[in-house]
Amino acid sequence: MKIGEFLERSRQRLVTCQPEATLNAVAKLLYQHSIGAMPVCELSGRMVGVISERDLVRAFARTDLNELQFIHAADIMTKQVVTCGPDDSIKTAQQLMKAHHFRHLPIIADGKVRGMLSLRDIMALRLEESESEVNVLRDVVVATRHQ
Amino acid sequence: MKIGEFLERSRQRLVTCQPEATLNAVAKLLYQHSIGAMPVCELSGRMVGVISERDLVRAFARTDLNELQFIHAADIMTKQVVTCGPDDSIKTAQQLMKAHHFRHLPIIADGKVRGMLSLRDIMALRLEESESEVNVLRDVVVATRHQ
Repeated sequence: MKIGEFLERSRQRLVTCQPEATLNAVAKLLYQHSIGAMPVCELSGRMVGVISERDLVRAFARTDLNELQFIHAADIMTKQVVTCGPDDSIKTAQQLMKAHHFRHLPIIADGKVRGMLSLRDIMALRLEESESEVNVLRDVVVATRHQ
Repeated sequence: MKIGEFLERSRQRLVTCQPEATLNAVAKLLYQHSIGAMPVCELSGRMVGVISERDLVRAFARTDLNELQFIHAADIMTKQVVTCGPDDSIKTAQQLMKAHHFRHLPIIADGKVRGMLSLRDIMALRLEESESEVNVLRDVVVATRHQ
């Protein structure tokens, strides 16, 4: 399956934050939308990073509580973002995640973020494909035996 | 597959915290061990809850930064914990997660926590089972055609 097809099927609502967002604002967005990560975009729409629940937990683990208020999304986000496009296959995306140890990839088309693909999405899609193949093959086996 | 078999295969190291742990200590444990959740246990070993990255993010989203230092694991953990046992099947665990909207289940045996099972573990196991079934069925189809 292509990522573009996943994007159409999932009907996800794209949630982003600005690089200047406070960690409190980031936490609110992630929590309210029940998402693990989101793209960080400038006002122009240009993506400059990705920020995740784990980035927040890391900031929380490393930073003195009094200093947390001075930290913004841009300070703790992942800047070396690996992306994928609608024409890439789910398999390519999975290989990218594995190679770079990311659990979320922004989906980019025409220079703009269109959505996010998570490792869990990928596993759900692969499982769906594999289980549907099992069903087809079982039917073939049954049909062959009754010939 | 039974959960006990998963536990043996995964060789996970059980990480727990006490109910009195500060959020900073909780964040450090989750981050250092790259885990999404852990059981909260009293000194006696009795489990009293589960605390996750998402619980931390929620606390972060809702609480004034000055008050975060006064919050402990027991204040934000999930207390209504659903558990599974080594003799339960992976399928049963998945149904429990779905029914209760949890992404992590503690594995309990003889009244003690033995490990954690995540939704991602379950999906990886089901994918493995399904893909191996695809291979077996493909072989059957090929063999039948050459009879």
